[in-house]
Amino acid sequence: MARTYLDWNATTPLRAEARAAMIEAMDVVGNPSSVHSEGRAAKALMERARAQVAAALGAEGQDVIFTSGATEAAALALAGQGVHCAGVEHDAVRSWCAEDLPVDRAGRISVEDPGHAAVQLANSETGVVQDLPEGLYFSDLTQAFGKIPFAFNWLGLTCGIVSAHKLGGPKGVGALVVKRGTDIAAQLKGGGQEMGRRAGTENLIGIAGFGAAAEAASRDLERGNWDQVEKLRNILENAIADRANETIFVGNESRRLPNTSCFLTPGWKGETQVMQMDLGGFAVSAGSACSSGKVKSSAALVAMGFSEEEAGSALRVSIGPDTREEDVMRFAEHWLKCEGKHRARRG
Amino acid sequence: MARTYLDWNATTPLRAEARAAMIEAMDVVGNPSSVHSEGRAAKALMERARAQVAAALGAEGQDVIFTSGATEAAALALAGQGVHCAGVEHDAVRSWCAEDLPVDRAGRISVEDPGHAAVQLANSETGVVQDLPEGLYFSDLTQAFGKIPFAFNWLGLTCGIVSAHKLGGPKGVGALVVKRGTDIAAQLKGGGQEMGRRAGTENLIGIAGFGAAAEAASRDLERGNWDQVEKLRNILENAIADRANETIFVGNESRRLPNTSCFLTPGWKGETQVMQMDLGGFAVSAGSACSSGKVKSSAALVAMGFSEEEAGSALRVSIGPDTREEDVMRFAEHWLKCEGKHRARRG
Repeated sequence: MARTYLDWNATTPLRAEARAAMIEAMDVVGNPSSVHSEGRAAKALMERARAQVAAALGAEGQDVIFTSGATEAAALALAGQGVHCAGVEHDAVRSWCAEDLPVDRAGRISVEDPGHAAVQLANSETGVVQDLPEGLYFSDLTQAFGKIPFAFNWLGLTCGIVSAHKLGGPKGVGALVVKRGTDIAAQLKGGGQEMGRRAGTENLIGIAGFGAAAEAASRDLERGNWDQVEKLRNILENAIADRANETIFVGNESRRLPNTSCFLTPGWKGETQVMQMDLGGFAVSAGSACSSGKVKSSAALVAMGFSEEEAGSALRVSIGPDTREEDVMRFAEHWLKCEGKHRARRG
Repeated sequence: MARTYLDWNATTPLRAEARAAMIEAMDVVGNPSSVHSEGRAAKALMERARAQVAAALGAEGQDVIFTSGATEAAALALAGQGVHCAGVEHDAVRSWCAEDLPVDRAGRISVEDPGHAAVQLANSETGVVQDLPEGLYFSDLTQAFGKIPFAFNWLGLTCGIVSAHKLGGPKGVGALVVKRGTDIAAQLKGGGQEMGRRAGTENLIGIAGFGAAAEAASRDLERGNWDQVEKLRNILENAIADRANETIFVGNESRRLPNTSCFLTPGWKGETQVMQMDLGGFAVSAGSACSSGKVKSSAALVAMGFSEEEAGSALRVSIGPDTREEDVMRFAEHWLKCEGKHRARRG
């Protein structure tokens, strides 16, 4: 059976540009820290990728620290910093913060002391986009990067984190981007890489893929490819809203990512929906993919004020530039059929 | 000009098997933490690679924790553990240890309390192989893995670390392997990956490459491919020893890795030699590649009792299964020519 992948916020298919750059990088023999010709060639490849990521982010290359992903970047920026956050942040951010910032039912976070706060630019589950306050210490830019336009240097942040695999790059590569002059104490030690801020031989092939993916994503965004994505997301939501009257679309009164739809159908468990959709050939999610094996209500939705039952009935559909109108229409049809059966069983 | 790569301890060319596995993994769309079909396929690919790495290590898959490299694996095992080590350990190990274990001029480390000690299986600069004491807490297996036979489960270790790019896999992937039941507290938090021991979406493509490389390296080792490597290393050393009487071969009275030669030519700086060899088309090293931009005498050689001048004159040649006899002979010829000129200049 042909499969339809509608879980782009969990991870994206690898872009052709990233694939080509990675295959090219496979022929580069040297260690970027070696001083000989092979080492310098590896270093040059890495620095080209750094410039690509920086350009896509609206930052300078020297302020981009490559890491093994956004999770490591979050630890590097947040551990021991006494930062506050809201319950809608990703676990990789919440793990290092006091979780005491309020968030309303529309997903808007209130910040008192931006210099000691972490506020995501966009939420992975609901797609809600925040207005970042001036002087913010930290923002998780992971889901926004490549989907909505922003420039790191204009956001006024001290630290931002991004991940390659959310915009068509490989999994296991990310970056911490910092305001010039920010002191970052290495957590991985024992090598001078990344200007002493992150030791360890660099993931050269993955970094090459990240650079190419960021450049391509940035170009697609400028071309307006995500306007079409937003149209399809709205077509999907309208198709569902027309016939499933009890379904709640989370955050749709707020500004959202163009590709994300999170909807609650109280009484019908999200995990059951995911399985039924999977059997129908559709990959979707009941929340963040990052908590392997755990099946529990979304902490983000509970933080926004939804009940455990409502949060436990969430389904997230997240699409991308490869998604076609027929994909979302077939999905809506299958989902509505299952929803009708569910309702019939409940009587 | 054709280049000859003789710096395999810094990093290795990507094996054909790793390349093929990585390209195959590029078509796997899912996040290994997702529960749908695409996620499960990604998870299966990762677990296959884990089994390959475990088999090559002589360990069990559930005891292998994938990381972004040996540097991260070292931090995970060593931070805050009160471990002692000798000055010949890699910086990624030394950074977390009290550096007070004695080491002799042959490179042999003395250990008093193995339960609180880190002892490398093989040294990256000299190739010296240690007899690991019973009940050792930690060993850096990075340089030994794939070059000499060992089984983790027979070494009696609590923790070992390995890296993919030293045996033909990609850079930026490694593992911590632990004795069953060892409690490892995650340093990267915010996801349940690696059984709660290391959060963050996994480097799926890199891990697939690691698995394939480890399996192929293990097979090559069993086939005896490294016997030929050792012969070539000895041919190289004899060619140099025959004509450069003042050159000292470090550790050649100890058991060494089959591929590594480290030799000192007092009065002739290692960094100068590296540059002259590079101009002649040969990639070699003056020590560890991992301290980007730093040019200083090898801490390992100084710890072994060599003077700063001796240590500063070190050249490391490290070869691999692709190296041919003509490569090492052309290298010896070029090195001897440069050494003759150097000697003539000094008068």
